[in-house]
Amino acid sequence: MVESWSFLDTVESNFRPLVVIELAKGTKEETIEWLTKRIVDKKANGGAQLLIKPLVTENGVENIYLVGASHLRLLLGAETVGLVKECNDNSMRTFTYSSRKTFKHFADDNHDFLTMAECQYIIKHELENLRAKNEKMIPGYPQAKLYPGKSIVRRLLTSGILVQIFPLHDREELKKLSHSWYGRVKVGYQPLDDIRCYFGETIALYFGFLEYFTFALIPMAVIGIPYYVFAWEDYDKYVMFATFNLLWSTVILEVWKRICAILTYRWGTLLMKRQFEEPRPGFHGVLGINPVTGREEPVYSSIKRQLRIYLVSLPFVCLCLYFSLYVMMIYFDLEQWALDYHKENESNFSSLMLYVPSIIYAVVIEIMNRIYRYAAEFLTSWENHRLESSYQNHLILKVLVFNFLNCFASLFYIAFVLFDMKLLRQSLATLLITSQILNQFAESLFPYWLQKRYNRRMKKRTCSKKTDMDLSLAEQVNMEKEMGTYLGTFDDYLELFLQFGYVSLFSCVYPLAAVFAVLNNITEIYSDALKMCRVYKRPFAEPTANIGVWQLAFETMSVISVVTNCILIGMSPQVDALFPDSKMDLVLTVALIEHLLLAIKFIMAFVIPDKPRDIQTKLAKLEFESLEALKQQQMQLAAESLQE
Amino acid sequence: MVESWSFLDTVESNFRPLVVIELAKGTKEETIEWLTKRIVDKKANGGAQLLIKPLVTENGVENIYLVGASHLRLLLGAETVGLVKECNDNSMRTFTYSSRKTFKHFADDNHDFLTMAECQYIIKHELENLRAKNEKMIPGYPQAKLYPGKSIVRRLLTSGILVQIFPLHDREELKKLSHSWYGRVKVGYQPLDDIRCYFGETIALYFGFLEYFTFALIPMAVIGIPYYVFAWEDYDKYVMFATFNLLWSTVILEVWKRICAILTYRWGTLLMKRQFEEPRPGFHGVLGINPVTGREEPVYSSIKRQLRIYLVSLPFVCLCLYFSLYVMMIYFDLEQWALDYHKENESNFSSLMLYVPSIIYAVVIEIMNRIYRYAAEFLTSWENHRLESSYQNHLILKVLVFNFLNCFASLFYIAFVLFDMKLLRQSLATLLITSQILNQFAESLFPYWLQKRYNRRMKKRTCSKKTDMDLSLAEQVNMEKEMGTYLGTFDDYLELFLQFGYVSLFSCVYPLAAVFAVLNNITEIYSDALKMCRVYKRPFAEPTANIGVWQLAFETMSVISVVTNCILIGMSPQVDALFPDSKMDLVLTVALIEHLLLAIKFIMAFVIPDKPRDIQTKLAKLEFESLEALKQQQMQLAAESLQE
Repeated sequence: MVESWSFLDTVESNFRPLVVIELAKGTKEETIEWLTKRIVDKKANGGAQLLIKPLVTENGVENIYLVGASHLRLLLGAETVGLVKECNDNSMRTFTYSSRKTFKHFADDNHDFLTMAECQYIIKHELENLRAKNEKMIPGYPQAKLYPGKSIVRRLLTSGILVQIFPLHDREELKKLSHSWYGRVKVGYQPLDDIRCYFGETIALYFGFLEYFTFALIPMAVIGIPYYVFAWEDYDKYVMFATFNLLWSTVILEVWKRICAILTYRWGTLLMKRQFEEPRPGFHGVLGINPVTGREEPVYSSIKRQLRIYLVSLPFVCLCLYFSLYVMMIYFDLEQWALDYHKENESNFSSLMLYVPSIIYAVVIEIMNRIYRYAAEFLTSWENHRLESSYQNHLILKVLVFNFLNCFASLFYIAFVLFDMKLLRQSLATLLITSQILNQFAESLFPYWLQKRYNRRMKKRTCSKKTDMDLSLAEQVNMEKEMGTYLGTFDDYLELFLQFGYVSLFSCVYPLAAVFAVLNNITEIYSDALKMCRVYKRPFAEPTANIGVWQLAFETMSVISVVTNCILIGMSPQVDALFPDSKMDLVLTVALIEHLLLAIKFIMAFVIPDKPRDIQTKLAKLEFESLEALKQQQMQLAAESLQE
Repeated sequence: MVESWSFLDTVESNFRPLVVIELAKGTKEETIEWLTKRIVDKKANGGAQLLIKPLVTENGVENIYLVGASHLRLLLGAETVGLVKECNDNSMRTFTYSSRKTFKHFADDNHDFLTMAECQYIIKHELENLRAKNEKMIPGYPQAKLYPGKSIVRRLLTSGILVQIFPLHDREELKKLSHSWYGRVKVGYQPLDDIRCYFGETIALYFGFLEYFTFALIPMAVIGIPYYVFAWEDYDKYVMFATFNLLWSTVILEVWKRICAILTYRWGTLLMKRQFEEPRPGFHGVLGINPVTGREEPVYSSIKRQLRIYLVSLPFVCLCLYFSLYVMMIYFDLEQWALDYHKENESNFSSLMLYVPSIIYAVVIEIMNRIYRYAAEFLTSWENHRLESSYQNHLILKVLVFNFLNCFASLFYIAFVLFDMKLLRQSLATLLITSQILNQFAESLFPYWLQKRYNRRMKKRTCSKKTDMDLSLAEQVNMEKEMGTYLGTFDDYLELFLQFGYVSLFSCVYPLAAVFAVLNNITEIYSDALKMCRVYKRPFAEPTANIGVWQLAFETMSVISVVTNCILIGMSPQVDALFPDSKMDLVLTVALIEHLLLAIKFIMAFVIPDKPRDIQTKLAKLEFESLEALKQQQMQLAAESLQE
């Protein structure tokens, strides 16, 4: 151990802790020694060439280590991960160490050139890419097998030696950020660039989408209010509202792509090259040769996976869907029972009872969604996908289908089987409001409780009235390692997706839905921000260029909503009255209008460019430059070859 | 002139003529001297470093020049255009001169490493990229302005000094190819790889698609025959046929993408990087700074172009569509008149008269299509698109919409306004067969006539019984420069597109359409092959990785055909009889089935991967390798930097 610490001693003066590694209690000394040696070892020897330091608290060393890196090491790491930064001429370029002088705000002594989130991302990347050379196992743990090229950190995580690895908060920055984000009541945009600097692009893009979506709903909400206030029930007004809704939902999704391109261009992720994807931590299989890399690594037959998907997962999902429909039928029986009860004993209590089935059903739906979520995660993990992206896609698909059915099946049943518009409106309102209250509750009470516990513990430990800012590093690390882990933006997007469903699927029946959605989203922004800043451990930044599969999910929802709204309008008595002679004409007209609307939607999606013109020009310029550089190089080579 | 020719003399011995340049009669001597100097000049001096030789015939020099290049020059050019070739380890890689030894069949003395078509493509690319340095105009032609960076050849073409530039046929290769392609009657596949070697990827891909499409139609044709033979009119059989058709058309379009990927991977174009697109020859504007390249070149305001598109082109297209509908109404009047005439004087003549309006209409449609085509070309050219691809897309869109309406409007009218299934079947048959006969006529008689003329002229010139093979180079060049120019695959794809419409849009009414389509396509392969080999000048090879916008066009057609077929089945009396009580139920059932079919189509298109697994693996392997190479490079740099 002496050798590696001595190496550190020389740079101790400018050691800035960035990432925390927590090892299991009782981890063997030889393992720790080996790991730290690998982390500080030179790149040329297959090490990560980072800095590592044990955390010393009043209780002595607790198997917690702080990882940092020299400024030069971070700059070289930025090149490895392919960070894109702004140049002096205001263009965005992939950072390379050799061209560092051309970048804006770069100076050899300016340690703020890379944001802290970027530094932490680089360190995470370097740690994950620390690979076994010829070790057959983790020293001290013969059951934790290694093979050449296996990521050491991932094996340590799966074998439980490494408890967790997380980036440190920057108390000062966090205070500034939370003040400008949610600290004061103000009307205005969120500080998205600051959020991105602190939490990375994936989270900033979620908040960007949440904000954009809320703004986009405002016109729908504003138009919806008079329908409620004046109890408008005219046919033409409803048709106008629905048509506006349908076209509007297409426009907002297309415009989002453009805004997303503007944001991610500014953040550099639009230009970032995709890295080669390594197997996800949970992936297992027998050792074989990977046809892509030619390396020895676990392989798992794609046919086996397909069999698991189609013979187990698919039937299971279908069974769950059936069960969900079964629960729905019970709900309708209850509803009927409540109605009968109300008819027999008309009283305040009985009229209150009318709402009970809906509320119970909304609660049951939430519970089923959460249980199903665990089952879906288990199944998808059992399907043994090699790549994290493939795992995520299969998980999202499973969860989306079930949630969609669970939330909307009863509404479809009421609308298109019972033809009961009054009940539809009432159910829609109950479902929407209940699920929003439940979510806000889960997202606000839970944080509040965690916050409380955190404050209590802090008081107990320090036995003083120190504020956050005065905490020693050891106290800060100990505090943060107990905080919950943010599991990604999945649930947040899912909530928005279902909300979009409530707003758009039956918009012509319940124009007020958009109003509730807007109100919910405004508080959502605040509670999510609080959650990110105060409740959870800081998550690692994840570069991303778009909201991925959610764009597709929202677009699919908006296509389905065209169909449902057309049918609803066709079924309204006012429209019925327009075709007194022939029901046929009515249905044909509705079908024709529906197809026209769908065609307009697709043409609009095709005609509106996904990227604004100036971003297109900037991208074309970069591509042109790289082609020119290549050509120059080839011309030189050609001239030399022809000279010979 | 002496200097440049002397340079040529040294390599005269292995000069192989590849490309012919024909200058206008009476081109000034100084222009010729300047041009040849630029062509042979060293790369370092901004020349193309090619070889050029005047063609000497019995009439002396006729302003025709032959262009060739040294073997080394061609190899370096292959690197510049980014050719992808097969390596010794059977993988496909971008060719570079420095790694030349790793490529299959490469040897310094093997001049067949690059196919003749590739050599010609390289020379064309080099000629087109011969750019003005500080010339303000073409010497001798003050009106032909130049600016630094302007392509010289394009300016020469637009100012009429350069009449044409085309690649030479290789008589021997052509004979071999035509023999294996259409020379013998055989059952089997076309020699696509040989076609690609001789004509390049765009044309080979068209023939590949034509062949694939014909094979794909065979199941539809086979299933369709018994409907005609046994005069089946049962409801369930028609529904089966239509459902099969709808799913089949989705499957074949998805499978084509996979086959296309296999072909273009083998040909190397799937991996070829897109080159930066230069302005198309016809593009004009005032000199300004291009925001992408930063160079001085003509710029044309995008707003002006949008105005031209939306204020002139769009109304014109609408007017043409209206006119087309007007002609259609006249056709229906004629049809009615013929029917009345037949009723009054029932005779053989009058029953023949029944077919006359349809035939006249089919001929008029063909004529209108052709006239409109010229108008569309003129308008699109006037819209002044900067890029050839943008020009092509706007042209294809204009032509497709008009052709679609022109060909199918009458059928839609008969089917969904007149509800006359008998007339629909009759019109469909007449339109399909007439248009096929017209096309075959135009594509076979025209070639035959050209062939005749060619033979006559050849006899007259040489006054002997020499065969093609014995022709001198001068005779060959003089022959070929008079041949027609192949204008690209547009018309060929359009014909297939309309045929696909006839087969799929109303397939459940006329199952025999597929049979006619298959028969037509078999002769089409032969007549198109003859056309390429014997009638037209050899076209320059164009690398391409897919059939581009046509894939989208075919997919759109298959979506529309779901709608039409569902409606047709819903309208059939047999289906009607199934819902004796309620027309409503019928319409709702049909609408439900239609939506289900559309959903299945989209899910199928989503689930079937666009590339076969082994191609995916190969592509992933290449990407992995290039990322690894980059990483190695960066690691080395990092190690060095950290060492310092």
